[in-house]
Amino acid sequence: MELRIEELNESELKEKRLDDLSFGVHFTDRMFVMEYDRGKGWHSARITKFQNFSLSPATMAFHYGQAAFEGLKAYPREGSKVALFRPEENFRRMNVSADRLCMPPIDEDFVLRCLEELIRLERDWVPRGEGQSLYIRPTYMGVDPIIRVRASDKYLFFIILSPVGAYFKNGFSAARILVETEYSRASQGGTGYTKFCGNYGASLKAGQAAQVNGYDQVLWLDACGHKYVEEVGSMNIFFVIDGKLVTPKLQGSILPGITRESTIILARDLGYEVIERQIEIEEVIEGIESGNVQEVFGTGTACVISPVGTLGYRGKDYIVNGGQVGEITQHLYKELTSIQYGTTEDRFGWIRIIE
Amino acid sequence: MELRIEELNESELKEKRLDDLSFGVHFTDRMFVMEYDRGKGWHSARITKFQNFSLSPATMAFHYGQAAFEGLKAYPREGSKVALFRPEENFRRMNVSADRLCMPPIDEDFVLRCLEELIRLERDWVPRGEGQSLYIRPTYMGVDPIIRVRASDKYLFFIILSPVGAYFKNGFSAARILVETEYSRASQGGTGYTKFCGNYGASLKAGQAAQVNGYDQVLWLDACGHKYVEEVGSMNIFFVIDGKLVTPKLQGSILPGITRESTIILARDLGYEVIERQIEIEEVIEGIESGNVQEVFGTGTACVISPVGTLGYRGKDYIVNGGQVGEITQHLYKELTSIQYGTTEDRFGWIRIIE
Repeated sequence: MELRIEELNESELKEKRLDDLSFGVHFTDRMFVMEYDRGKGWHSARITKFQNFSLSPATMAFHYGQAAFEGLKAYPREGSKVALFRPEENFRRMNVSADRLCMPPIDEDFVLRCLEELIRLERDWVPRGEGQSLYIRPTYMGVDPIIRVRASDKYLFFIILSPVGAYFKNGFSAARILVETEYSRASQGGTGYTKFCGNYGASLKAGQAAQVNGYDQVLWLDACGHKYVEEVGSMNIFFVIDGKLVTPKLQGSILPGITRESTIILARDLGYEVIERQIEIEEVIEGIESGNVQEVFGTGTACVISPVGTLGYRGKDYIVNGGQVGEITQHLYKELTSIQYGTTEDRFGWIRIIE
Repeated sequence: MELRIEELNESELKEKRLDDLSFGVHFTDRMFVMEYDRGKGWHSARITKFQNFSLSPATMAFHYGQAAFEGLKAYPREGSKVALFRPEENFRRMNVSADRLCMPPIDEDFVLRCLEELIRLERDWVPRGEGQSLYIRPTYMGVDPIIRVRASDKYLFFIILSPVGAYFKNGFSAARILVETEYSRASQGGTGYTKFCGNYGASLKAGQAAQVNGYDQVLWLDACGHKYVEEVGSMNIFFVIDGKLVTPKLQGSILPGITRESTIILARDLGYEVIERQIEIEEVIEGIESGNVQEVFGTGTACVISPVGTLGYRGKDYIVNGGQVGEITQHLYKELTSIQYGTTEDRFGWIRIIE
């Protein structure tokens, strides 16, 4: 397939105001779009002006949520260079989501090349302050204008870009997380391992209740007994127990985070022991109280690594490590962001530089 | 709020071809739309031309599936009259879905009045053959052009109409249903009791696999042990066991079907005993083999009541009632459709006539 690049005239370019870098509010001038029709395959790949889609009220995705997304970041490098962090993993996972939702696969290499071309054109939109980046949002949705419950015959795949500020604006601060004991995120045989749109819509209620009660996000437990730790709203979760890193084993209901996997690889390389296993919430709570659980942190594209300072559980707050950010958390954050921002060597081959 | 009715000129009216009544493919000339902005509330209620929406690629619902729908039917009556079947129940349930998805409530009475006005304008689109109807699809979605994971500040609510043919085109035929033992639909603490878009997107994979293997739909079991019967893809399920009607108890993971509830009320009125309880799939399978399970049928807006002739379970087909449609199934189907099409008295006050 050929990529068509539409010329934008001067009047179509927005002023590159990079002063408001609120997450996901402002988008760059251009986007990547391609379309799929059953029988014809993917077609009309183009880099075009960021503009509205014209969609039928009967669009499949509106009614039945046949849609999935990805999230990754482009980091500023010297001059006007930009670094992508493991983007091939995002497109690989996009195809895992696609398969679960009966959507045809995308050509991962082709889409990655198109993303690189898009970022090349939009490189002046990459904010260059500390901790800043260009957030990349690939999205994939069924757009048949037919409200029958079956996989769509028509799809839209697009990538939009949003310049975003540093996640930790006022220093490396610890999150307050509420352990969710009523609502569930995902069960075995469900969609928890994908970036299915519905996983997020279904999570809003618990997230809102947590925020009303003074927490930043929720920690999901397993859907069946609310006994085992799964993941946080937008992060995977890690515990430092007796000096070892422990994180829930992926078993179909947990998102296989790319930052999660990178953290595991990096931590092992740095000499830490990492264990993936089922973790009971009771073990965590008792461990925080006894001091056996020394640190808690989350991993995700947005935060990279975020310390967790408080776990709210059944009406009580449990303070991790006396409210101090732990050493291992800080160490991993520094090492991982150094790879992303290029202040340390890319020894795992995770970085793709766009010249 | 005032309802604005836009005049359509002659050229904007489609030819009312009612020969292809495939489900959900063709839509009428007009639709109802209203919008919500936080701080301003619902506004701009209008009946307008059925036309595409112009939506940002960053639209909340595309990314996070904050959307829900309803489905009901308008039935043809004498002259150009039309009957709605318990429409207030659909808008009540829409608000249950809205609450679960952190969407602001709609004014149920106002929306029902708008629907009636819309149908009055579109009455010539109601097909008048046996078993035909006008399918009504209210849809509700978050449309903030911001990709942050939190409840949208902007919403779109719309109702579109599609003339549909008889569900049973070649007589009252029995469905082949596959008992799903791998995938799950909903768990406790999830969204199973709502018409959340994501419930349907997540179900496509199992439905597709069932169809490839020669079944019409799947029968979902509970997400935790795949032990208890929940519901069929687009229907609630009933069993006739020892002459009594038995249907799974609503416990948060099952859709509270309006046809399900109507069937329970009607059956009791007709003198049948109806029991809502947990039902093990093993009890059903053994009952079909022993003859204790005498009939199986589904209930839903599309089919009203659909006999189930075969349950596929762990590689084996179990034939219900020797492959014959049962008497109770037929009786309930006849009684319920007679109320809907007006050939019997509306003794429960379920019908709203649009003159």
